[in-house]
Amino acid sequence: MQYRSGCPIASALDIVGDKWSLLLLRSMVVGATSYSDFLAAPERISTNILSERLDRLEEAGIIVQVHRRRGSRRGAYALTEKGAALIPALQELARWGETHLPDRWAAPDRFYAARVEDFANNSGRASGRQEPGAP
Amino acid sequence: MQYRSGCPIASALDIVGDKWSLLLLRSMVVGATSYSDFLAAPERISTNILSERLDRLEEAGIIVQVHRRRGSRRGAYALTEKGAALIPALQELARWGETHLPDRWAAPDRFYAARVEDFANNSGRASGRQEPGAP
Repeated sequence: MQYRSGCPIASALDIVGDKWSLLLLRSMVVGATSYSDFLAAPERISTNILSERLDRLEEAGIIVQVHRRRGSRRGAYALTEKGAALIPALQELARWGETHLPDRWAAPDRFYAARVEDFANNSGRASGRQEPGAP
Repeated sequence: MQYRSGCPIASALDIVGDKWSLLLLRSMVVGATSYSDFLAAPERISTNILSERLDRLEEAGIIVQVHRRRGSRRGAYALTEKGAALIPALQELARWGETHLPDRWAAPDRFYAARVEDFANNSGRASGRQEPGAP
């Protein structure tokens, strides 16, 4: 990873500073696990951007594939502990959007209730044995 | 503003979901106010990206020009209350970067000590009379 500087914010944005990465994490916090789940989100991500972002998030250790079947390119995805640690930032962005942008949806209660610790079992690289999002 | 959906996170990312916007806010939280301050940050933003981002953040009501002299295209910038309300999200991104990315700088104490309320006087559109960042 080539970082622009040693600044922790700049470096975080080098990884997730785009319109889609944090949005995929949002979907995972409320239950999305599969490629088709991500495609079904209301923002209509294109398949090529989705594939690229999933691969990049996986390479960065933010998400991990679980339950990948033999010969299947993409299994279910789960947040790692490193990925789940972005939940507070996501929640702050949601609060900001709800408060400061007109007529936005309210994020569901389970989104604000999500805790980093709920995802603490997914910190390994793909083991194929964990339930995505299992506590 | 054309939002991808009503989701408050998607909408927030429609505005600040890129590598530079939140980084400019970071610089402002620790004292940057002028075009040359932003150019001096270690990430070496290019002048055309800086100009485009400043204009976009101003249009979104996140920053405001203060002290603009007659005939001068760019004065000093200050965070508005709407912009300062992104500080908690910035702080969470900084914590994440410090904790989960290797060998990042520690953000200065004054960055983590910054409070939304410290910027509450800058909520108007360019008045030309406020001190940038004044409490």
